[in-house]
Amino acid sequence: MTTRFDVLGIGNAIVDVISPVKDSFLTDNNLVKGSMQLIDGVQAQRLYDLMGPATEVSGGSAANTVAGLASFGNKAAFFGKVKSDQLGKVFRHDISASGVSFETPGANMGAETARCLILVTPDGERTMNTYLGACIEFGPDDIDEATVRDSKVIYMEGYLWDPEQAKLAFLKAAEIAREAERDVSLSLSDSFCVDRHRSSFLELIRRDVDILFANEDEIKSLYQVESFDEALQAVRKDCKLAALTRSGAGSVVVSDDEVHVVEARKVEKLVDTTGAGDLYAAGFFAGYTNGKGLAQCAQLGALAASEIISHIGARPQESLKDLASKNGLL
Amino acid sequence: MTTRFDVLGIGNAIVDVISPVKDSFLTDNNLVKGSMQLIDGVQAQRLYDLMGPATEVSGGSAANTVAGLASFGNKAAFFGKVKSDQLGKVFRHDISASGVSFETPGANMGAETARCLILVTPDGERTMNTYLGACIEFGPDDIDEATVRDSKVIYMEGYLWDPEQAKLAFLKAAEIAREAERDVSLSLSDSFCVDRHRSSFLELIRRDVDILFANEDEIKSLYQVESFDEALQAVRKDCKLAALTRSGAGSVVVSDDEVHVVEARKVEKLVDTTGAGDLYAAGFFAGYTNGKGLAQCAQLGALAASEIISHIGARPQESLKDLASKNGLL
Repeated sequence: MTTRFDVLGIGNAIVDVISPVKDSFLTDNNLVKGSMQLIDGVQAQRLYDLMGPATEVSGGSAANTVAGLASFGNKAAFFGKVKSDQLGKVFRHDISASGVSFETPGANMGAETARCLILVTPDGERTMNTYLGACIEFGPDDIDEATVRDSKVIYMEGYLWDPEQAKLAFLKAAEIAREAERDVSLSLSDSFCVDRHRSSFLELIRRDVDILFANEDEIKSLYQVESFDEALQAVRKDCKLAALTRSGAGSVVVSDDEVHVVEARKVEKLVDTTGAGDLYAAGFFAGYTNGKGLAQCAQLGALAASEIISHIGARPQESLKDLASKNGLL
Repeated sequence: MTTRFDVLGIGNAIVDVISPVKDSFLTDNNLVKGSMQLIDGVQAQRLYDLMGPATEVSGGSAANTVAGLASFGNKAAFFGKVKSDQLGKVFRHDISASGVSFETPGANMGAETARCLILVTPDGERTMNTYLGACIEFGPDDIDEATVRDSKVIYMEGYLWDPEQAKLAFLKAAEIAREAERDVSLSLSDSFCVDRHRSSFLELIRRDVDILFANEDEIKSLYQVESFDEALQAVRKDCKLAALTRSGAGSVVVSDDEVHVVEARKVEKLVDTTGAGDLYAAGFFAGYTNGKGLAQCAQLGALAASEIISHIGARPQESLKDLASKNGLL
């Protein structure tokens, strides 16, 4: 049965503000490299004042994933909340122009459009500081039932567990999707995020989630185990399908008895890892929703991730469809 | 005698909105590749709606030059007008964080902060569409006399000739600079801009300008001649010092009997030519205000231009001071 959308992403609608920093900037400001921390408006202003000149690019984890899917030629939709301010218009323009259907109305009142202050160290690693702004206005009323029913996969970011109303929206969407027999997919987003919401995540995964995305730190944090292999054994019991990413060490995909270990793709120059996981999910879904085998899904994920880490920002700068076809993957 | 600033830049305060396009996008929309055209708010919205996903980076010709100078470790200031909106805050943050003194108050009323919709074709060439917005509020009152007197060089972009009040501000700054025996420098900005203001530019150059920057098209347009050499002979009579850039063919610097022909620097991958001329001027001034010979000034210009065309956006992404020292130029 065909649906209007291959994937519906639900997530925080964020504009990234990306700036290179030296490692000392992180230590001077007590920031944990590679993590995402939530900051309030005052902290955001303080950090922005300390940061060097920046580049603004639309971001948001699930939003990056659906923008990536559109670049693969897939049909994608997005739910998320911006304010109707200049940065909100930038976000709306970018995701719509990438080919994603984005109909969530912007907020006219309240906090400004969310931004994520991303500090990129010389090793290409990003450290994220998120001011949620208008994202806290996203709630169950923003879940358009028809769109959920008309999407093969509903993909939600773990970060949504942070704003209270978004969590309720998430649960509502999952329920509609389950009733409509759609796949429910979750990205664990960040190991600190897992730490904040471990027991609810586990409950959710066991009850609702068909496809789980996590990186090594996140899956180890979820099961509070020391080794990747222990986490792997645990997740096999809880989840129909899990795609576990390990940065340069590639990814492992498990589903029932099927297991694939797929290499990462080498890049000429690692510039900025922002969005690597998001685009891995995009590539994976590009294969998955086209009925490809799991190994090919993982290879497509690795391909999309390699494009995104070769430049600043988490939205593709070349056609992923062309790239995949050039590499014989689609 | 030491001054507080090496260079004071005066120009339009603009945020660039940069998006890759195919060549057909330019022809479909009747845009002249490589040019800058002024557009109104309605045209800006229409074009933005047609453009693909974009990246926002602070821009503005003279602003790029002073940001480049700060990256070389020079002391620089900037006059220009933003609105106190989100994009205005982005502009103010970026130029201040780069180390440039920027004290022009933002407008609280009126048009939004200016933006330039920049379309980058696969050959790296940029085609610019500028919505001047709040820049039209910039006027003589924004010329802080003390800062002009305290700058070795006053550098103004030809684009300032477009908004009427900015032109008056420009003339006021030039007069103060002349009285204070400072160098007055002008960039011709764009051949269409020269076409709009040829006779006033010539009058200004003959009366006020000590250092002129122009590319080949601009200088040929100024003198309405067919060949670069004819333009070169003409400008020698009118100007104490002229630095003429010729893209991949390098640059020619003339001052009285002194002439230098300096190569462009090869880049691994030409990504986006936005800001090449602006950063050439930055490198040139980095040498000039440190008492270097003209050949070395031109080499520094070529070096800074090569950095800027290797990535998206017209603000340096690495320290130009380090780059210059690595190349034995400073």
